[in-house]
Amino acid sequence: MRKIIVQKFGGTSVADTNKIKNVAKTVIREKQNGNDVVVVVSAMGHTTDYLVKMAKDLSPDPSGREMDMLLSTGEGVSIALLAMAIQAQGYDAVSFNAMQIGILTENIHTKARILKIKTDKLKENLKAGKIIVIAGFQGVTDDGEITTLGRGGSDTSAVAIAAALNAERCDIYTDVEGVYTTDPRVVPNASKLDEISYEEMLELAHAGANVLHPRSVETAKLNNVPLRVRSSFKQDNLGTLILGVDKMEINRPVAGVAADLSQARIVVCDVPDKPGVAAKIFSALAKENISVDMIIQSYARKVSNTNDIAFTIDSADLDKTVKTLDTLKHDIDAHGDIQIDDKIAKVSIVGAGMIDRPGVASSMFETLAQQNINIRMISTSEIKISCLVDKSDAHRAVKALHKVFGLESTEIADVKGDLPDV
Amino acid sequence: MRKIIVQKFGGTSVADTNKIKNVAKTVIREKQNGNDVVVVVSAMGHTTDYLVKMAKDLSPDPSGREMDMLLSTGEGVSIALLAMAIQAQGYDAVSFNAMQIGILTENIHTKARILKIKTDKLKENLKAGKIIVIAGFQGVTDDGEITTLGRGGSDTSAVAIAAALNAERCDIYTDVEGVYTTDPRVVPNASKLDEISYEEMLELAHAGANVLHPRSVETAKLNNVPLRVRSSFKQDNLGTLILGVDKMEINRPVAGVAADLSQARIVVCDVPDKPGVAAKIFSALAKENISVDMIIQSYARKVSNTNDIAFTIDSADLDKTVKTLDTLKHDIDAHGDIQIDDKIAKVSIVGAGMIDRPGVASSMFETLAQQNINIRMISTSEIKISCLVDKSDAHRAVKALHKVFGLESTEIADVKGDLPDV
Repeated sequence: MRKIIVQKFGGTSVADTNKIKNVAKTVIREKQNGNDVVVVVSAMGHTTDYLVKMAKDLSPDPSGREMDMLLSTGEGVSIALLAMAIQAQGYDAVSFNAMQIGILTENIHTKARILKIKTDKLKENLKAGKIIVIAGFQGVTDDGEITTLGRGGSDTSAVAIAAALNAERCDIYTDVEGVYTTDPRVVPNASKLDEISYEEMLELAHAGANVLHPRSVETAKLNNVPLRVRSSFKQDNLGTLILGVDKMEINRPVAGVAADLSQARIVVCDVPDKPGVAAKIFSALAKENISVDMIIQSYARKVSNTNDIAFTIDSADLDKTVKTLDTLKHDIDAHGDIQIDDKIAKVSIVGAGMIDRPGVASSMFETLAQQNINIRMISTSEIKISCLVDKSDAHRAVKALHKVFGLESTEIADVKGDLPDV
Repeated sequence: MRKIIVQKFGGTSVADTNKIKNVAKTVIREKQNGNDVVVVVSAMGHTTDYLVKMAKDLSPDPSGREMDMLLSTGEGVSIALLAMAIQAQGYDAVSFNAMQIGILTENIHTKARILKIKTDKLKENLKAGKIIVIAGFQGVTDDGEITTLGRGGSDTSAVAIAAALNAERCDIYTDVEGVYTTDPRVVPNASKLDEISYEEMLELAHAGANVLHPRSVETAKLNNVPLRVRSSFKQDNLGTLILGVDKMEINRPVAGVAADLSQARIVVCDVPDKPGVAAKIFSALAKENISVDMIIQSYARKVSNTNDIAFTIDSADLDKTVKTLDTLKHDIDAHGDIQIDDKIAKVSIVGAGMIDRPGVASSMFETLAQQNINIRMISTSEIKISCLVDKSDAHRAVKALHKVFGLESTEIADVKGDLPDV
């Protein structure tokens, strides 16, 4: 039984016909390794921007259904061109859009979730020795409506197809060399990780590392599909393998350090210490689609019988949050201010290995103390410890933690892009 | 029961977002007339050229299947954008590609024929009051392969959809104002015809008038769908209605005059006068996909018992024809030369009214004689008389015939483009 490898190439990797020729070579190399190959591609480079611009020319608020019809054409172009490029090099290839395969999704436009992938057409074509090229990012509903999957869509398509085909592995080709112990723009000698668990990858992604959308990692975890993040341009580099923690060979307390500079802290002061108050606040925010991250409720003050509820949100939701809380204030009988602070950052250490190792948290707190960095809030999960600090301290915190937990490489990472703002 | 009007807009009419807004207005105007409206559109302006160029970058001979996948994305873009533009003006619209509707074709890539069109989705959406926007030029096979219809494809899609829906009429919007009595670049006071029969339109098209591809006219004739050719830019002008001869109100011997400058004449000299020789020649040419137009076989010469076979072909097929005949010469025992003349033109008069009117042919021959134009070959059908003349005489012949048969307008037609070469 031949192994199936699913490969995914993003828009940058197929931005022009020369790049498509290179992708064809990478695909064929995997085929020459004796594997069956299924390739998932996004729309070419700036196609989506161009299509969105035309839509906005025609309508200030184009319908989701027609946006999906419009955007799904982008992958139609790239799959056909890639199949041609593979054929031109003497290999049999066939392209399919989501409708042809039956990548069934919910009937929700612009951000549908995949429900089921039909595999009969895929298996039949693999059996015939063909390389299959599939349109990422798109799906179809039971009654033939075209949908798209929203952010991280093509990665998710690739992982879901790998799961449906019980593939050996899903390789996500990208413009970085893999997953790093921290942002190499902040710490130039950050190490590339050879392996990382799904859980660690999820915590790192949520903590501000942007290599993969959490959604695709969650899908991989759920279906136990090994994922490899690797460079489109440096083929020899095997990148980072993301897999179940039970299959990992590496044993280290901390896998990575991340900073999220886009959070804001809200404190609702002097709310009555009685049941249901927190529920009212957070369900009102949820109704407005505002994601809340760290939450701390102070001990109740004895005299006033009130307490403070503090939490963090994405800065982009700040206005909406304040508006929601203002409306709510009377209802929850809150007497104090609503305090806002967007000069904060969340610094996190992530590692599956910390579960059995006491002392990781105290090492973190000590390190920050030595750096004279004040901790404003703390939250922990099984494999992550996050500290809220002043935004201006964030990079210094990351550097110190990265060093303390022994994550440095002897090499300087080759990365582009500016340092994130503090 | 509301009437259904099918409208078709070509690539020039939807070349940019401003033009798409104009098309939306035209569509809405028809809806405001109280009709149900189904719109068929082609890919935007130069999209197809751009896609073909990328394909050629990747492969000297891209597979038909992948070309169809690639090109079919073009209409996906234009249908979504047109639906958005209609919605932005406050009308309910929904776009569908061929796969969603079920425009079923043969399993032949790049030039499939439509076999059947499913109408349930169309009827359901019309019933819901929606304007339906459909991708022209494309189809789908029984097993979900995407096909395209080749030349004249979008016109044919529109006519076939009109037939399937039993539509009142199919309006083909184009950059000319209608069908003219002759090429207005040759005869500036050519008249726009208000009505013309399918048969006349077909003969005119085959005789070199390029308003509609014969394929779409044939489909309209077969299904008795009234077709209107009209201008995208001059909405008040009703253009030309193409319909069954039995429904026509107008009574005139000649509807139009056309010249085909792209023919070449071949004479195979001294072939034996025995049964089966002509069959051998023309079946050999048919096997090579060479269309033969006029055919004349001379009377057999008494002494040698041979005759000459003359016929015309498209100049583009000249080399292929000569090669085929050279191979055949020995087999048919032909002793003479193969003469070639590509300095000829076919001038035709077309009119359903000539059936009951003797003297039309003699008027034509007399007119050409008065002009001192030599007739090299003659062929006739029920509603057409064609004369082969020297290419340099073609425009003069058209002008004289146009005048003799009373086809002149008092107005000078507003047309663009160069005069066809003689």
